[in-house]
Amino acid sequence: MADITAVSPLAPASFPDLPKVAGVTFATAAVGVKYQGRTDVMLACLAAGTTVAGVFTKSTTRAAPVLDCQAKLPGSDTGPAAILVNSGNANAFTGANGIESVNAIVDAVAQASGCDPSRVFTSSTGVIGEKLPHDRVVSAIDDLVTKQSNAEIEAAARAIMTTDTYAKGASRVFETPDGPVTIAGMAKGSGMIAPDMATMLVYIFTDACIAQTALQQMVSDHCDTTFNAITVDSDTSTSDSLIVAATGASGINVDGSSAFADALYEVMQELAHLVVKDGEGAHKFVQIDVTGAVSTASAKTHAMAIANSPLVKTAIAGEDPNWGRVVMAIGKSGAEADRDKVSIWFGDVLVAENGWVSPTYVEDEAAAHMKGEDIRIRVDLGLADGAFTAWTCDLTHAYIDINADYRS
Amino acid sequence: MADITAVSPLAPASFPDLPKVAGVTFATAAVGVKYQGRTDVMLACLAAGTTVAGVFTKSTTRAAPVLDCQAKLPGSDTGPAAILVNSGNANAFTGANGIESVNAIVDAVAQASGCDPSRVFTSSTGVIGEKLPHDRVVSAIDDLVTKQSNAEIEAAARAIMTTDTYAKGASRVFETPDGPVTIAGMAKGSGMIAPDMATMLVYIFTDACIAQTALQQMVSDHCDTTFNAITVDSDTSTSDSLIVAATGASGINVDGSSAFADALYEVMQELAHLVVKDGEGAHKFVQIDVTGAVSTASAKTHAMAIANSPLVKTAIAGEDPNWGRVVMAIGKSGAEADRDKVSIWFGDVLVAENGWVSPTYVEDEAAAHMKGEDIRIRVDLGLADGAFTAWTCDLTHAYIDINADYRS
Repeated sequence: MADITAVSPLAPASFPDLPKVAGVTFATAAVGVKYQGRTDVMLACLAAGTTVAGVFTKSTTRAAPVLDCQAKLPGSDTGPAAILVNSGNANAFTGANGIESVNAIVDAVAQASGCDPSRVFTSSTGVIGEKLPHDRVVSAIDDLVTKQSNAEIEAAARAIMTTDTYAKGASRVFETPDGPVTIAGMAKGSGMIAPDMATMLVYIFTDACIAQTALQQMVSDHCDTTFNAITVDSDTSTSDSLIVAATGASGINVDGSSAFADALYEVMQELAHLVVKDGEGAHKFVQIDVTGAVSTASAKTHAMAIANSPLVKTAIAGEDPNWGRVVMAIGKSGAEADRDKVSIWFGDVLVAENGWVSPTYVEDEAAAHMKGEDIRIRVDLGLADGAFTAWTCDLTHAYIDINADYRS
Repeated sequence: MADITAVSPLAPASFPDLPKVAGVTFATAAVGVKYQGRTDVMLACLAAGTTVAGVFTKSTTRAAPVLDCQAKLPGSDTGPAAILVNSGNANAFTGANGIESVNAIVDAVAQASGCDPSRVFTSSTGVIGEKLPHDRVVSAIDDLVTKQSNAEIEAAARAIMTTDTYAKGASRVFETPDGPVTIAGMAKGSGMIAPDMATMLVYIFTDACIAQTALQQMVSDHCDTTFNAITVDSDTSTSDSLIVAATGASGINVDGSSAFADALYEVMQELAHLVVKDGEGAHKFVQIDVTGAVSTASAKTHAMAIANSPLVKTAIAGEDPNWGRVVMAIGKSGAEADRDKVSIWFGDVLVAENGWVSPTYVEDEAAAHMKGEDIRIRVDLGLADGAFTAWTCDLTHAYIDINADYRS
């Protein structure tokens, strides 16, 4: 049996040195929701006037905290706001208990922090179908408000982990004529990862000033090619939530700023990659580039069919340049393809073209690429200009170890 | 590492004692297409006037033999017919070589057996992307014609195997006022199994008389709830083919006979189940019944989302009654569901209802069901009358063992 407690071999050497974001403070607590001996609640307090945008799972069985967050957006920008997250229990499929637990936590945070309840956003992640012991969370809230500090983002990222093997953070600082603007965020997620949106929790903070509608549009657009372009196992969580909070504490307005849009995109993409690199059992990070499709949507269908194919993913685990399985995945995707116009590369090695193996193909060269940690599969469909890039990981024994005995 | 050469624990004790079907004979040969020391070609010769119907993969990258079979149907019923199958090489994504190999084999069979080339159907199964050494197949054909015998159906079923761990056969005999009608068939398939249609080769023979259009319609209809209702890994082969041949040798016309339709359905369902029971790495056979959906199509979407979920399948492997993952799969399927109207059973144990765990639920009872070999998951969506049943297997370490190192 694989060592399922080991840190992913694809993990960064350490948590990044994230800049502080003016207007945001954090605190964490260990209340024993499920896990013992580790933090499992984090509270982020946001300055008065913070703008909040979000993207949430489209699952029809989504959890109570998700429904509550969705109902609260776009909301007003008046007064302070707060984000409370617990790990260990997803408060999903818990019947009427679900919203009771959300309300109890929201009310306690509102009372202790001085936020209006409509400005308190909560998330829960962990086991589905078990009643959340929200009293344990509520009992820690006064202390969490008292202990707020702007230096605790790494601790916050750690408190929201479930099967994650490392905490995930990313940041960008960009200069404007009026001074620097900072963006920093955290993510959790490791299994039950697939589009709509990748199963995870993501919180990104910036001291920029921006209108809610502009921020929401930007976040939704970026999501399509970042968190909705990754997959670990094709399974979609009931709790996926991405919240971006702009405190405005820098005093710098970024409405219409492409530098802000680009920096936010980079933070979102980096966090999305960090989630894939912590994919349950992952030993390889895989980028799948599809070009030449009849549309972007068609390219995405092909890319995700390849990224989700158990046969492609096990071949990658076995370091086997088995391009026949890529052909199979293209064929099964349901999207338009002409067998004889497809070209396939593993890394820089042209493997197949004109409906068959390339005359220049040398299997040892493709096999050498497959031995690396960063795998790149490129498919050109030769039809038109549609393109999409997806990211996934390999499918290994450790995925089975983790998931055949996660709950019991 | 799991013993990937072991016979599936779900295999029947032995190959069934199949009745002979008048008008059909078989022979097999070992020509070393890929495998050494085992048969890898089978030729079935069909009496003059045999009616042939077929269903084939919808993959856009389907193999040359599939395209050739599709072009030949419905065809005429005049003269004898033949089916030749090789294992070890799929003759898929082999460029212009693909149809050259098909033509070489078809011409050789036609010449040796006296069939018109338009009445010779071929299939190839095995590795994708490698040129089929068709000369080896062609060299055996004269001998295969000479050795034809009506007693060799088990040998034929064995010659078409690839990663299968056992040969698969099923039959029904039903009485009519004019005497008995016999149906007997064989299947191969173990991985790359998913709807459209389940990745496999299936050949079913009957001595009934029936018009081609009636037989084709019946086979296509039955396929929806048999071979297109099973999945091992959500991956779809480039070579899936189901061929049903009615020799008419009984002299009994079954046009409009519900007894024939039922018997054919039973043979198709039994073969479909045998494929799932040989799912790569399978230790459990899983039936998923979805009822109460807004339509049959919606019920199928839910059932297949559950059947294809790696998290559901690994939970079953771990004998964990993790109904939260069933909720997750329903939620992600994209089909209509109301979280608070869903009921879920594991075996006969009501697990969840009204959006939460059932008050009568005792986990030990569900856990006991999960320890069995035949797992049944039932979901009632509580919306309308749409229903669908799907079959799958668990996802185990052996699947990874088999697929991380199949080709190299």
